[in-house]
Amino acid sequence: MTVLSDYKDYMARKSSSRLRATIPPAHDLSRKRPNQEKGLPRTGKKAAAQGYWLYGIHSAVTALQNPQRVVYEVLVTRDTLSLLPATTHQPMVVDREQLDSLCGRDAVHQGVCLRVEALTPPSLEEALERPGPILVLDQVTDPRNIGAILRSAAAFGAAAVLVQDRNTPPETGTMAKAASGGLDVVPMIRETNLSRALSSLQQAGLWVIGLDAGGIRLNSDNLGNRRVALVLGAEGAGLRRLTRETCDEIASIYMSGPMESLNVSNASAVALYELTRLSS
Amino acid sequence: MTVLSDYKDYMARKSSSRLRATIPPAHDLSRKRPNQEKGLPRTGKKAAAQGYWLYGIHSAVTALQNPQRVVYEVLVTRDTLSLLPATTHQPMVVDREQLDSLCGRDAVHQGVCLRVEALTPPSLEEALERPGPILVLDQVTDPRNIGAILRSAAAFGAAAVLVQDRNTPPETGTMAKAASGGLDVVPMIRETNLSRALSSLQQAGLWVIGLDAGGIRLNSDNLGNRRVALVLGAEGAGLRRLTRETCDEIASIYMSGPMESLNVSNASAVALYELTRLSS
Repeated sequence: MTVLSDYKDYMARKSSSRLRATIPPAHDLSRKRPNQEKGLPRTGKKAAAQGYWLYGIHSAVTALQNPQRVVYEVLVTRDTLSLLPATTHQPMVVDREQLDSLCGRDAVHQGVCLRVEALTPPSLEEALERPGPILVLDQVTDPRNIGAILRSAAAFGAAAVLVQDRNTPPETGTMAKAASGGLDVVPMIRETNLSRALSSLQQAGLWVIGLDAGGIRLNSDNLGNRRVALVLGAEGAGLRRLTRETCDEIASIYMSGPMESLNVSNASAVALYELTRLSS
Repeated sequence: MTVLSDYKDYMARKSSSRLRATIPPAHDLSRKRPNQEKGLPRTGKKAAAQGYWLYGIHSAVTALQNPQRVVYEVLVTRDTLSLLPATTHQPMVVDREQLDSLCGRDAVHQGVCLRVEALTPPSLEEALERPGPILVLDQVTDPRNIGAILRSAAAFGAAAVLVQDRNTPPETGTMAKAASGGLDVVPMIRETNLSRALSSLQQAGLWVIGLDAGGIRLNSDNLGNRRVALVLGAEGAGLRRLTRETCDEIASIYMSGPMESLNVSNASAVALYELTRLSS
């Protein structure tokens, strides 16, 4: 472990052989998607580094505990060091200001940043071996919403979150922070054709419920032992026609108030709660 | 209604008598709090304008329909004009780029901005005349979270959202956008001393439940006809000691998954849903 009082010095030393050892060999880099958003602007030598910066205590601790997560670097302040789990990854103690400058002004890094590779998700078939409902996001594009939904999916024991590859942003620091560890607990599976994926879920015996206005009341009392895939559309636009037509039923969250409107992250949380509240 | 192709021209004309007529007379300005955050940076003549810029279709439409809302100016794009309700407020048609520059790059204004005064909330006693549970926020400071919570409070029929004045940001465009109209539906009441306010609620016959880890399961089956005030703390820190001790009971949301963690906005939505799901 090294305390570096000068971050520029640290950045310069990234090209030295000792630090280069933390950058993975080329054969490991095949996991990287070509169009992967880095989450943070990069310049000069830093631009050559692989993966993205994941920050925040919960996100970092959960990533370090996930055996599937490829971690390249662990940067941590002295105050936060004791909160990290013991792992094979050697942390580097840095100043808070250095993490501020690395993550950007708006990022609440809480004293820890990891340079990580985006996860390689399991296949849909593998994900179905896990218990719990499947959450399907049709055109939800905001990384903070997707992160918050992954966090709720982890809290309510969803088996996986299924998204359409083309319209869904890649894993980023913003998404990971909002997920607060959920990214490393619930797999996010990217499918090319969402309608086809819904049909596969139906063939696997799942009951596909689209969440939209004007449906029957979502009520787990009426679902018996059915395993459910719950489909949520983009805020405003709702479900696309083809997605809607593929669903076995359209259901709505019961709301007693004057304004029938929840943001997509809150709608996901409430619907997952309703689907799992009888599971105890 | 005037189409202005040049926003600079519009800004210059704000000092003309015709436009000055849309700025309220001095006796209306007494509602403005001295330390009120404006939500957007202001310079030159604009800095002298009262209120803040509220944007987004749902927020704007609900504000225009709220008789308690003081509206100074309505700026709208030609495309969005037909979505506004007929009111006494004369809209001014502007270009989308003009709203972009007014609201800032990150603000999703959806073609409409209103310059409005922050609402004057009712007293706690007046709010209790409305039906539904009361939501109490102890140290929730993020305007987007508060906005999303107001939106859920409106969806699930809460009577009011009670906050501690000192630690709660004022109404801003960001908060109003996240609330998606909720600000104009559910009153947000600012109290100096939250423990004293909780005692007042207890004296008024409400059952005060603190939402925190390690409590009994929040279940409306067990609450009978009790009217509930639900207290939520800041994420991470949870409820403060004094707040916690004032509560009649501590309850937790049932979560079947491996990660017992929801963000405060999702926790509010799920708890309000649980409290109101038997009300139909």
